[in-house]
Amino acid sequence: MTSIRRLRDAIRPPAPEAAVEAQRHLDALTKPPGSLGRLEEIALRLAALRGGAPRVDQPVVFTFAADHGVVAEGVSAYPQVVTAQMVENFARGGAAINVLARQAGARVIVADFGVAGPVPPALAVLSRRVGAGTANMAHGPAMTAGQAARAIEHGIALAEEAIDAGADLLATGEMGIGNTTAAAAITAVITGAPPEAVTGRGTGVDDEGWRRKVEAVRAALAVNRPSAADGLDVLARVGGFEIGGLVGVILAGAARRVPIALDGFIATAAALIAVTLAPDARHALFASHRSAEPGHVRALAHLGLVPYLDLSLRLGEGTGAALFIHLARAACLVYGEMATFKSAGIDQSEGASTAPSEAFPSDRMEPAEPAPDKGQ
Amino acid sequence: MTSIRRLRDAIRPPAPEAAVEAQRHLDALTKPPGSLGRLEEIALRLAALRGGAPRVDQPVVFTFAADHGVVAEGVSAYPQVVTAQMVENFARGGAAINVLARQAGARVIVADFGVAGPVPPALAVLSRRVGAGTANMAHGPAMTAGQAARAIEHGIALAEEAIDAGADLLATGEMGIGNTTAAAAITAVITGAPPEAVTGRGTGVDDEGWRRKVEAVRAALAVNRPSAADGLDVLARVGGFEIGGLVGVILAGAARRVPIALDGFIATAAALIAVTLAPDARHALFASHRSAEPGHVRALAHLGLVPYLDLSLRLGEGTGAALFIHLARAACLVYGEMATFKSAGIDQSEGASTAPSEAFPSDRMEPAEPAPDKGQ
Repeated sequence: MTSIRRLRDAIRPPAPEAAVEAQRHLDALTKPPGSLGRLEEIALRLAALRGGAPRVDQPVVFTFAADHGVVAEGVSAYPQVVTAQMVENFARGGAAINVLARQAGARVIVADFGVAGPVPPALAVLSRRVGAGTANMAHGPAMTAGQAARAIEHGIALAEEAIDAGADLLATGEMGIGNTTAAAAITAVITGAPPEAVTGRGTGVDDEGWRRKVEAVRAALAVNRPSAADGLDVLARVGGFEIGGLVGVILAGAARRVPIALDGFIATAAALIAVTLAPDARHALFASHRSAEPGHVRALAHLGLVPYLDLSLRLGEGTGAALFIHLARAACLVYGEMATFKSAGIDQSEGASTAPSEAFPSDRMEPAEPAPDKGQ
Repeated sequence: MTSIRRLRDAIRPPAPEAAVEAQRHLDALTKPPGSLGRLEEIALRLAALRGGAPRVDQPVVFTFAADHGVVAEGVSAYPQVVTAQMVENFARGGAAINVLARQAGARVIVADFGVAGPVPPALAVLSRRVGAGTANMAHGPAMTAGQAARAIEHGIALAEEAIDAGADLLATGEMGIGNTTAAAAITAVITGAPPEAVTGRGTGVDDEGWRRKVEAVRAALAVNRPSAADGLDVLARVGGFEIGGLVGVILAGAARRVPIALDGFIATAAALIAVTLAPDARHALFASHRSAEPGHVRALAHLGLVPYLDLSLRLGEGTGAALFIHLARAACLVYGEMATFKSAGIDQSEGASTAPSEAFPSDRMEPAEPAPDKGQ
């Protein structure tokens, strides 16, 4: 519990002056104020968090994998062995997250937090095993309190190591057959939404599978009665090892003022737990995209986050967060590389940034000549 | 008119077999079918257009500038001289489009299609002047039919030159104080929407300015009575020189099966005109983003396009299209670099791609061991 407690104490909201200064800079750039929309919002939030010009030079994607005992309830379209097979795929560079992280210039850190099947030891996968998959939460706690703490500690250690090596954006990813069921349970507990409102199709279950999934979530809540205000308890009773790892990444990033790009539903469920532990962690969170999972919208609303991309992604692994890296970098480059009105010698009507009407004094009106047909 | 007619004849819909083959490939990749959402849609459309594996290796942004006589009606928050000043800014690399194109690895081709003020000849700006700004469309035609044709021909020539040099994605951008008023008029004519429904705040006019803008659009339509079915007539009566140039880029791209990333409202108005001239051009169009301008939604609906980004951008220049390049490239990389289930040796339940229910045979259910607390 040591590092969790240490980070909880260290997580503070950013200083308001940093945001004021960043807004002033954005308004001086050669564009109508606010015309880059949410790109400016990203730049502002990144600058406020960092306390200066934002940068995304060394993004890192954490793709944590673990298995879930709740698959015994028939909640997934894929067999559990796929978790281990996909970990091999990550290690060999053939998965979507490998492709998208390469494009974004991001390193992928793959860690086994507790895959049920064997993972060949020779692979480029870090072993941070907390168990051989969780227990079936429909019949009892998914893990012990000690396992929950250990999963978070492992995530913290991996994130701190990456930050010490220069990581300036942490992207959250995961793999685990059955983990949308865990995310649905976490979201139901912490947001108070009913299970059927936060349970989706995951990788593609049919109607029958969806009903089994809702029932599994309902059973998990009834059997375990997790305490909504206690993130560690929620994680232990209805969470997952890889979700605990992501809670650790979020706490470590927030404490060091390094932005965290949440991926989809599962990563956002981890954020719900992290914010229960340290409410000001939310200032470091960026919701990369809106997933196709219905529970994701509820979770984001609870966190007060509005996603930047809406591409109907439902793969996980960190893929949405990897795509967001391009937007985050664009925001940084706009902030750092655009000319200002002053440096470019461009007319900036005095009132333009605050009162557009004053930007239109009559002596400025320069009606065009009637178009003479000059050709080229 | 020669090249316009030539291209109109050359523009055809893509062969359906290409889309079928592309869909088959996408479903063989190591992810649940469709789980990359609209990224898969982009990949599918790009592959169908190209007739094979898609690629975005040499994107080019066309940023065309011209002035608009309608500014005399008081429709913009900025004085007309800003068009020429921004052209200088483009040439010096300090504008948002320069920054975002550099990030996306795209070349920017800046061309003066008819800026009112002087543009220093030494700058890296191509001169494709069709006039010194359009005439005030609130009192008569914005340009002659000959000027409209010439603007399109210049756009075609620039795009064909770029395609011959290897360009594999054409992004459309523009700059012209007053050009959201022209775009509103074009959109009203071609979609049939009332002027007040397609007129927005542009770079930031106040309520009074917005009313003047709506009146200007209304006057332009009443005075000119453009023929909605005749794109050339619409362009001549209520368009702009830079908009004509973008019509040419769209026609050239569609004829050569090179994808076109539309930027915002003005570029989409150009697409409305292009599709009037050659309806099958729409297969080559990708709506990069949903602009903050209300008319943009109407124009996109008319084209049957759903935008990929929604970031409240309202700058133009090609900035939204430049951001879209990352998504287009991501789609190509996913298509070309991901492992298949077969190559990765991953369990793919037979029914997974078509009938998720069959992907869950009971002999595949492998309940996890109850989580033993192994630690690491």
